Amino acid sequence: MSVDDYLESARDRDWEELESGTLRLAMIGLGWWTRKQAIPAVEASEFCETTVAVSSTHESGAELVSERESIETALTYDEFVDGEATDEYDAVYVCTPNARHLPYAAAAAEHGKAILCEKPMEATVERAEELVSETEDVPLMIAYRMQMDPLVRRMRELVAEGAVGDPVTVQGHIEQQMLDVVSGDPDQWRLDPELAGYGATIMDIGIYPLNTARFVLDADPVSVTAQMHSEDEAFRDVPDQHAAFTVQFDDGTYAACTSSQHGTSSGSLRVVGTDGVLTLENTFLGQSPQTLTLTKPNGETVEIDDGRRDLFGDQMTEEFDYFADRVVRGESVAPDGEHGLVDMRAIAAIHEAAETGAEVSVE
Amino acid sequence: MSVDDYLESARDRDWEELESGTLRLAMIGLGWWTRKQAIPAVEASEFCETTVAVSSTHESGAELVSERESIETALTYDEFVDGEATDEYDAVYVCTPNARHLPYAAAAAEHGKAILCEKPMEATVERAEELVSETEDVPLMIAYRMQMDPLVRRMRELVAEGAVGDPVTVQGHIEQQMLDVVSGDPDQWRLDPELAGYGATIMDIGIYPLNTARFVLDADPVSVTAQMHSEDEAFRDVPDQHAAFTVQFDDGTYAACTSSQHGTSSGSLRVVGTDGVLTLENTFLGQSPQTLTLTKPNGETVEIDDGRRDLFGDQMTEEFDYFADRVVRGESVAPDGEHGLVDMRAIAAIHEAAETGAEVSVE
Repeated sequence: MSVDDYLESARDRDWEELESGTLRLAMIGLGWWTRKQAIPAVEASEFCETTVAVSSTHESGAELVSERESIETALTYDEFVDGEATDEYDAVYVCTPNARHLPYAAAAAEHGKAILCEKPMEATVERAEELVSETEDVPLMIAYRMQMDPLVRRMRELVAEGAVGDPVTVQGHIEQQMLDVVSGDPDQWRLDPELAGYGATIMDIGIYPLNTARFVLDADPVSVTAQMHSEDEAFRDVPDQHAAFTVQFDDGTYAACTSSQHGTSSGSLRVVGTDGVLTLENTFLGQSPQTLTLTKPNGETVEIDDGRRDLFGDQMTEEFDYFADRVVRGESVAPDGEHGLVDMRAIAAIHEAAETGAEVSVE
Repeated sequence: MSVDDYLESARDRDWEELESGTLRLAMIGLGWWTRKQAIPAVEASEFCETTVAVSSTHESGAELVSERESIETALTYDEFVDGEATDEYDAVYVCTPNARHLPYAAAAAEHGKAILCEKPMEATVERAEELVSETEDVPLMIAYRMQMDPLVRRMRELVAEGAVGDPVTVQGHIEQQMLDVVSGDPDQWRLDPELAGYGATIMDIGIYPLNTARFVLDADPVSVTAQMHSEDEAFRDVPDQHAAFTVQFDDGTYAACTSSQHGTSSGSLRVVGTDGVLTLENTFLGQSPQTLTLTKPNGETVEIDDGRRDLFGDQMTEEFDYFADRVVRGESVAPDGEHGLVDMRAIAAIHEAAETGAEVSVE
């Protein structure tokens, strides 16, 4: 495929097979991401609708029932676990604190529902493994929205087709002001190791360059090194307000990444190969323009900005429609639980590497 | 200073005090860099001229004497060390294999000549320390051309003035196809640990993001982690055909860097701070346009391309003129030997970190 063809087809869905159909979703957890991004993205989707809202109280969900036409039922977590209204939804989107993914995913599996579970899968490797084993009878997809981003998918295709020769190095970074962007509350769950897991930064955002590099390279991490520390009072209980890490992948490629929950929102991913360089700017945080640039050794450069400006919304709509396309057709989903476990093991290794000052294998 | 002022003054010399004067240079080592970059850069300079050419044979230098008007004398290394023609030059530019910097710098010091010595300073920390002690009676400057690059200097000023708030993370990378760019000869000195020192990649090019990050942050490295390996036959004697490393600086900032001698020529440096992001694209390898972009948290972006297209030449001319400006006026030079020693110790630490799989302090 020529670069011109890529430009023209940059927004095409390379996976859609469904012509019609609807997957009815229960939203588990009604925090800012579910309300501001996921529910509107489902409304913009072709194959999904939100019918049930699940939260700690009826009140949170009731507000959505009155606001959103498709949402008819509000449940508490306990009612959801107990199997109420199971005929009103076909699948669940789990977007709770990390350490609550396991019980709600397990309950969804018990009700025979397909699961789209937010990243990171759970708070620890052990709990994530348990999540996979508890849900083995239903489709389980981990919500890596970057994997459904059209330009990330083009980047992966270009790498697979040899557009940069053999990949050699990857540079990735993601920073944000979490206390400004997500919540200014220092008591939020992302800063509570019991609910968040290994830490606040790698688990929440460092996972983006890690997983997106895996996806783009089609390779898995084998070993890591890392440095991290926290300095501000709000981050006193977590080790990784700021972090840097390196990853060696099983194809030999090295990635060097930084991540911080106390930096200006920014993120990019670059692959340097033996025969070209691919750079995706504004990769992770919904910033636009998101531009994909291919530079060849002779300096020739092609830049693709596919015109999208609501990237969070677009990525989430793509993700929900893809999930529905697979589930409604009865096809297996990806990225699946086994894929997500690799990130959980890599993140545990990154934290161990920083704590021990040793290179750690991802096992 | 406003961003508009920066745009207008981007190419101004913020150091020039000399109105007239000439520093006569002996070029020590006549490899591709000296011939293709250094000698033309001196010809384009205001305050330098090359008068003496020193190499292993008279023939190499004699060719330059016939080609270049200002060059009148060709010496062998031995003749130079023995003190021939010392009245024909005021200073030396040492651009030999790394492990030859010490004897020629020491000889220059013995002759009372100022020294501009290429990076890395020497093959090992011990030899670099010896170089500093042998040259303590003359000006010694390490030829970090990035420190004289106008946009790198603006980047440093912007960081110092708080344009990005407090720096949090740095991303740097440099890759090139050494066997294509420098020499295809697998027996070249850069692949010989005796002559190159710790390795082929960090010593030769990984030093660029390391040193430029130091300069831009005005901070020094305190600890490092690293991964590296060689895969191609030409790199069998060195450990670092490809490498990734992290650096913690004494202000707490983390840098994550990659470097490879077998990747498409590319390089960039980015500083993410609490209140903005500074990105310098095409930073290190003379590629153009070299653009400096400041992005503020509200998304406002200012991009500076100062129009230079011969970056190697421009950086080297700036470096030689700066060196002359300082030496002719009898002022101390910077970056000096003590500055260079910090990189030598950091590079030794990076190699030790990769070899042992442990985080290593820079001491």
